[in-house]
Amino acid sequence: MLEYVTDAADPRLTDFTRLRDVELRKSLEAERGLFMAEGEKVIRRAVGAGYPIRSLLTTRRWLQPLADVLGDATVYVVSDEIMTATAGFQVHRGALASMARLPLPSTASVMESANRLVVLEDIVDHANVGAVFRCAAALGVGGVILSPRCADPLYRRAVKVSMGAVFSIPYARMDNWYTGLDELRAAGFQTLALTPDQSATPLDEVKLGDRVALLLGAEGDGLSSRWLHEADEPVCIPMSPAAMDAGVDSLNVVAAAAIACHGLMRGRR
Amino acid sequence: MLEYVTDAADPRLTDFTRLRDVELRKSLEAERGLFMAEGEKVIRRAVGAGYPIRSLLTTRRWLQPLADVLGDATVYVVSDEIMTATAGFQVHRGALASMARLPLPSTASVMESANRLVVLEDIVDHANVGAVFRCAAALGVGGVILSPRCADPLYRRAVKVSMGAVFSIPYARMDNWYTGLDELRAAGFQTLALTPDQSATPLDEVKLGDRVALLLGAEGDGLSSRWLHEADEPVCIPMSPAAMDAGVDSLNVVAAAAIACHGLMRGRR
Ligand SMILES: C[S@@+](CC[C@H](N)C(=O)[O-])C[C@H]1O[C@@H](n2cnc3c(N)ncnc32)[C@H](O)[C@@H]1O
Ligand SMILES: C[S@@+](CC[C@H](N)C(=O)[O-])C[C@H]1O[C@@H](n2cnc3c(N)ncnc32)[C@H](O)[C@@H]1O
Repeated sequence: MLEYVTDAADPRLTDFTRLRDVELRKSLEAERGLFMAEGEKVIRRAVGAGYPIRSLLTTRRWLQPLADVLGDATVYVVSDEIMTATAGFQVHRGALASMARLPLPSTASVMESANRLVVLEDIVDHANVGAVFRCAAALGVGGVILSPRCADPLYRRAVKVSMGAVFSIPYARMDNWYTGLDELRAAGFQTLALTPDQSATPLDEVKLGDRVALLLGAEGDGLSSRWLHEADEPVCIPMSPAAMDAGVDSLNVVAAAAIACHGLMRGRR
Repeated sequence: MLEYVTDAADPRLTDFTRLRDVELRKSLEAERGLFMAEGEKVIRRAVGAGYPIRSLLTTRRWLQPLADVLGDATVYVVSDEIMTATAGFQVHRGALASMARLPLPSTASVMESANRLVVLEDIVDHANVGAVFRCAAALGVGGVILSPRCADPLYRRAVKVSMGAVFSIPYARMDNWYTGLDELRAAGFQTLALTPDQSATPLDEVKLGDRVALLLGAEGDGLSSRWLHEADEPVCIPMSPAAMDAGVDSLNVVAAAAIACHGLMRGRR
């Protein structure tokens, strides 16, 4: 169903407003149970992964290429100016879909489906979450578990940076941070706490078990001391002592995730 | 020298204007030979690396902590409102320094000083450039060579993301893209072209020479075919076939750089 809208303040466009206002979007998306997919490619992946389109905001020009995936979603057709005014910036490849979220799988089912997991504790930056998903998927990790407060993988920027990997890799969110690692251990996962602390076991020397969960910590503070101590083993990626003296004393979480996920592959040769 | 400024349009503040306007900043910074350092920590690193402060923009509150590094730089003291209005966003930790650029070293001198190099071809995103510098420094790579069109490591966002690594790792820019690899080869570097193409040699199977240069390509297009073909060997990081089918067909350049730089370390054990 096509509806032509000529006013950025039209309440029908509320799903699509002020996409750069992180706080507003977080509450709006949670309340309405939606997330944004931006551009044809991402929209197709989201639909392919089973997420229903609630509605689409687009310009005349970008309507045609998406015709086949729209089903009976409402389509709001606007000018470039209204598009920009609504979203708050110039939208890449003029199409934004408001997608309905689906219930997440349980942590138990994600643990059951994979022998290699990445576990993210309280990562703040959506781009980092997206980039870790992309790495994890590309490097053969089978699932991701998020701490209760970890940033949302379906947030627009995470989706974009992940190249759609948030749709292809199963993930779940823990209910309880405090007992979070117990469940992993009960499911037979060896828990490796990734830390820049150079007195930990170097990654390449870890004896990998059949089931391995890599724990990665937040950008600023790293892993909580609870998780660090509860994990089976603290593990580090060796860094240059000269760089550490010069103040480069950790890798960013995406780089650490990439190296560690790549390291897991050796366990399977 | 302290100067109190009460108008965001005051021409004395031109160095600090509209920091989010990438195009404006690129030409302004090139023309004036300056770059921005944001926040006390980054400013200290830049000064420590020998860059002179041209001037500082700050609020009363953040003046004191920087007093010892200011030398005779002019300090513009403004209110929080003027600071935000000038920069175009709320400046993290209220201090911005306009730093004078220094002449870059020659590619020859960077090649002479290190046996492990990262070479970036036309990377577009400043955050990616900064993150690669952070990885390279942390993982013991001794220098970075940039293609003529690669994004600037001293751009504000690159500096920030690098955690100051752009100040600790020597880098140079090629004059000539076309003959860029000849000089590396003449200096005895084995040139490894990193590519997602899974028919290339897997990273962990490469025989590493004494001097190794890792070539990394742009976000969208990857390495040019010229560099791919001129390099000694195309090298890939193996990826999950299932992920590739689902459309995750490459790693981001930072993840690839991290894994490859880590891989270089094995050559030195
Ligand atoms: C930016 S770091 C956090 C730095 C924090 N200051 C700390 O000490 O943990 C974010 C996460 O990346 C991972 N990480 C960073 N550098 C690492 C290294 N050299 N070895 C292993 N993991 C690392 C850790 O999981 C860390 O929690
Ligand atoms: C996002 S990728 C570019 C993708 C581009 N479509 C291509 O085919 O090269 C950016 C750079 O990261 C590096 N890269 C990405 N995935 C890689 C992999 N699996 N193995 C080796 N290098 C990779 C390459 O240097 C590449 O040029």
